[in-house]
Amino acid sequence: MTPSSASRPSGINGFAAAAPDNTKSRVTVVGSGNWGSVAAKLIASNVLKLHSFHDEVRMWVFEEILPTGEKLSEVINKTSENVKYLAGIKLGKNVIADPDLEHAVQGANMLVFVTPHQFMEDICKRLVGKIRKDAQAISLIKGMEVRVEGPYMISTLITKQLGVNCCVLMGANIANEIAVEMFSEATVGYRENKEIAHKWVQLFNTPYFMISIVEDVEGVELCGTLKNVVALAAGFVDGLEMGNNTKAAIIRIGLREMKALSKSLYPSVKDSTFFESCGVADVITTCLGGRNRKCAEAFAKNGGKRSFDELEAEMLQGQKLQGVSTAKEVYEFLSTRGWLEGFPLFSTVHEICTGRLPPSSVVKHMEHVPKILPPGRL
Amino acid sequence: MTPSSASRPSGINGFAAAAPDNTKSRVTVVGSGNWGSVAAKLIASNVLKLHSFHDEVRMWVFEEILPTGEKLSEVINKTSENVKYLAGIKLGKNVIADPDLEHAVQGANMLVFVTPHQFMEDICKRLVGKIRKDAQAISLIKGMEVRVEGPYMISTLITKQLGVNCCVLMGANIANEIAVEMFSEATVGYRENKEIAHKWVQLFNTPYFMISIVEDVEGVELCGTLKNVVALAAGFVDGLEMGNNTKAAIIRIGLREMKALSKSLYPSVKDSTFFESCGVADVITTCLGGRNRKCAEAFAKNGGKRSFDELEAEMLQGQKLQGVSTAKEVYEFLSTRGWLEGFPLFSTVHEICTGRLPPSSVVKHMEHVPKILPPGRL
Repeated sequence: MTPSSASRPSGINGFAAAAPDNTKSRVTVVGSGNWGSVAAKLIASNVLKLHSFHDEVRMWVFEEILPTGEKLSEVINKTSENVKYLAGIKLGKNVIADPDLEHAVQGANMLVFVTPHQFMEDICKRLVGKIRKDAQAISLIKGMEVRVEGPYMISTLITKQLGVNCCVLMGANIANEIAVEMFSEATVGYRENKEIAHKWVQLFNTPYFMISIVEDVEGVELCGTLKNVVALAAGFVDGLEMGNNTKAAIIRIGLREMKALSKSLYPSVKDSTFFESCGVADVITTCLGGRNRKCAEAFAKNGGKRSFDELEAEMLQGQKLQGVSTAKEVYEFLSTRGWLEGFPLFSTVHEICTGRLPPSSVVKHMEHVPKILPPGRL
Repeated sequence: MTPSSASRPSGINGFAAAAPDNTKSRVTVVGSGNWGSVAAKLIASNVLKLHSFHDEVRMWVFEEILPTGEKLSEVINKTSENVKYLAGIKLGKNVIADPDLEHAVQGANMLVFVTPHQFMEDICKRLVGKIRKDAQAISLIKGMEVRVEGPYMISTLITKQLGVNCCVLMGANIANEIAVEMFSEATVGYRENKEIAHKWVQLFNTPYFMISIVEDVEGVELCGTLKNVVALAAGFVDGLEMGNNTKAAIIRIGLREMKALSKSLYPSVKDSTFFESCGVADVITTCLGGRNRKCAEAFAKNGGKRSFDELEAEMLQGQKLQGVSTAKEVYEFLSTRGWLEGFPLFSTVHEICTGRLPPSSVVKHMEHVPKILPPGRL
């Protein structure tokens, strides 16, 4: 709590309610799942040290009634803990859960979006005209849809719908590991405005969570989605017990296709982005652990005889598998463009998922080096 | 066997001895350990299909007497199997083991060097004046010394001592996995002469061992050595059970330092080299399996209380640990140049190995992004 806020009437948890002091930045986290809660925790610890930010961090909570009959938002505000999605971790007393979306963003000029990607269209619609005109946004949302006309970038959706600049933050980020302060890194992708990128770094960076910045929103955001297709390939290799050599080769080929596809879509995408946490490190993490890899391993072990739907239901306790639908979308996109041949790994993964090819095909037909194709209309 | 060789007097195994037909290329593999034997197998399968190469592949064998009392070279020629270093794998009948180094290289214009790096100085001395003037060389030798004046590149040693052009072949190559034809990749680094690079590709490439080429001998060769330092860091992370997130971050930081150091040493080194098999894939393989990682894991598990010498003796059955000495050499080199600060991971790994820092330091002090430093005199 800063001295100036201490003299104002206290809000929930003793922190100042809607702040009249507009010289200070005010952060709202839109989303309160596993990763959203960790994001709030990181930001909450940083704003207390930064004079240019309000101490209070609001977090929009999609309200749920817990088995105890209590409301999730109320329990978070009472205990500073998201007992449902990040149990056992204190978020900081300055995190204020708010179940009212419009109220949660009121007065905030730094908006952090971290919800499942399929909710964003609706959330944006609800926020039109409700946010500050000088607001800045950042998306932590991985796993966009890849439509036949091109990837449906969440950063673009936010910018178009809300008229605000939008950065992205991606990386090798397993929420539960960062929650317990294990060392990792992330990448902020920004467009032109480097100063804003540095402001996001101030909010997220800690000694155990190191942020780098790159002027490449599209490259960073595409990494967060395309890596899931690579993870399926790595899972097939694991299921077939093909060894570390093969796994490393498949990860490398996957990274190459991620790079080639991103550059074909957006000529502004930089090679160097793929050396950042959002690129090589996130691919590695996702191919070592992660649910896509795990289910793909089981799929290959069963020789493709049990469907992904079945394995997902059995293995993931209600969580959804991103990779299979992304692989399908990427395949359809590549097919429409006539680009399939340049992306043998992406194509093969989809054909394995649908049963057209056996899992062992993952190491075949890899001789086609992807070309960077001329960008088409998106 | 080609029709032309069939009419000549037969050598060992029915293949032609020293060939009078100098229009055809003739390959000798200098070295017959685990990786050398696999290299001979790959080449032997390819030359039979290539009209521009002699069918016979000679392999210099450092002679040993087996427990049965037989000579290793004779057993290889009788069984087409290197019973000591690659048991159970047929090398091809056209691989001719030869214990006489000078005789083995006679008439050969394609020389493949694949011995432990510390033997190369002596081997080169013995070969001066003994090889064809138009010979081409390739080094598969990983793990050069890094001296205070700079890395002691094996490709440079070969070129200087023998007066021949020397390419390198590196990559995510666990010999035993390639021996059983599991899919993997490798990278050939060449200098100017792309035609020669393609000739090496013809000799090594198979559907399960895919070769790409890059015009960057130094970058490719340095990857094969520096990755062992990264593997120690990954092993510490494993030993401390820091999770996949942290491991991926450390691998990424390691790759970044490999790139920065290589570029500081040789401005001609290309970023793109580190996306090849010799770069990202070899680092991943080495950080997933490999003896450096394994011993470093045990070292961290024991809180640094048991020395690497002790662990090596216990865990490696006589094999040597490359990473610890490379880390020391790199540290001394960086220290001499005043570059330590720019390479926090490389420096920290050495300080952990010597006990000056605890294994948990591997995730600390990583905030110093390595700069590409002006190249000094090597």
